[in-house]
Amino acid sequence: MERIDDLQCKGYRIVQDTEAFCYGIDAVLLSAFAKESVKKGYRVLDLCSGNGIVPLLLAAKTEAKEICGLEIQEEAAELARRSIALNQEEERMEMLTGDLCKIMELRKKNGERLSHRYQIVTANPPYMQSDLQNPDSKKLIARHEILCRFQDVARAASFALESGGKFFLVHRPKRMAEIISILRENKLEPKRLQMVHSYVEGEAKLFLIEAVKDAGVELRILPPLVVYKNKGEYTEELNYIYGIGKEERKNRTT
Amino acid sequence: MERIDDLQCKGYRIVQDTEAFCYGIDAVLLSAFAKESVKKGYRVLDLCSGNGIVPLLLAAKTEAKEICGLEIQEEAAELARRSIALNQEEERMEMLTGDLCKIMELRKKNGERLSHRYQIVTANPPYMQSDLQNPDSKKLIARHEILCRFQDVARAASFALESGGKFFLVHRPKRMAEIISILRENKLEPKRLQMVHSYVEGEAKLFLIEAVKDAGVELRILPPLVVYKNKGEYTEELNYIYGIGKEERKNRTT
Repeated sequence: MERIDDLQCKGYRIVQDTEAFCYGIDAVLLSAFAKESVKKGYRVLDLCSGNGIVPLLLAAKTEAKEICGLEIQEEAAELARRSIALNQEEERMEMLTGDLCKIMELRKKNGERLSHRYQIVTANPPYMQSDLQNPDSKKLIARHEILCRFQDVARAASFALESGGKFFLVHRPKRMAEIISILRENKLEPKRLQMVHSYVEGEAKLFLIEAVKDAGVELRILPPLVVYKNKGEYTEELNYIYGIGKEERKNRTT
Repeated sequence: MERIDDLQCKGYRIVQDTEAFCYGIDAVLLSAFAKESVKKGYRVLDLCSGNGIVPLLLAAKTEAKEICGLEIQEEAAELARRSIALNQEEERMEMLTGDLCKIMELRKKNGERLSHRYQIVTANPPYMQSDLQNPDSKKLIARHEILCRFQDVARAASFALESGGKFFLVHRPKRMAEIISILRENKLEPKRLQMVHSYVEGEAKLFLIEAVKDAGVELRILPPLVVYKNKGEYTEELNYIYGIGKEERKNRTT
């Protein structure tokens, strides 16, 4: 079933298919984490783009010149194209269908459009490793590494970025050590890292990372991002990210 | 100048030289992080052991059978030996003088004592990279990578541990990405990670990591460890770690 959801940001909306994968907090946190770095006139590429939630949020929140998504599932990409039209963003935004494992071939087909030209690459990739050979569900493809492994995502990001460009990623703590190694093998040096905890007393459920292509070693670990103050009650920071209330974010002690 | 400090734990004391490097919060947090894993009868090796603070705290807090320190600076090792005697721990504890870069040679000299036999290895190594060639200060050697690089520490830890043994490390966030890569190159897979923040709203100042030799990929990121509630006032967790008050640690929400 299809539905149209409001993105709580400047009236932007998204077309979603409730039987496929609807966006979650991960995409919202990723776009909030990346947006300060997306300067006016920048080019942005979103990998594993799904129904285009991250490009749409970045369109709503930034003055990027060009925001491109790459998605392997044609149906999801088609939903994204309808959202782009719905929001009248055809000039800045585009959704390509294609396999990021073949980004070099895609580049030729798309007239150099995917190589070494982006200032920003984002990804909310499948989290889980998988041995499934014949996936029959769109949700499975979105959640499991069936059609691409994290190695492929990192390689594609590194290929698409210009030197000094930034890669923003959301992923699960379980795989963080491996992911840091793979980023560094692909010349993507982790520079900012933030853990996401449901409650401040609990283990991290997600992490956000910014890696810079060809950069030197020096990582900052940001204050933990805590989702809930009490059961069912977001923290002020989460309300701010979701655009609920309009409080200025508190100045942080560092 | 020398002084004897109380370790706030079962009457244990340490001999320190105020002109060399006195122990700080790092060593206290490292031993607190490691102690649950040090089971009765285990063998423990502490690298970059300095005046022996980590072995002394682990002696006070665990029922390890054997706790050995390895330190390159003879004067610091000698202080550690005096602390061992002061605490009447000569049967369980020993401080070796030697260069961990040459751990294989040390092993032969010490009758296999340093190879593949420890269940636990700990290290609070020098944090800062350095190009200094002629260090003239004991503090500089303790703080900068003059006599060993992190690569050497990780290699020595991997060499000393039995398969499945655990390496506990405290280090600075700045270098965390690099350190995770180096641990994994040495078959030390990160399994538990905890960020240490002075205040919950600030960036992390230290991190604690547990890596297991020859283990599979799966990392847990623990709740952030916060040092201060308000200026000059420790959190309950820090009071507990320092043995101030004797409150039970709260059950954590996970």
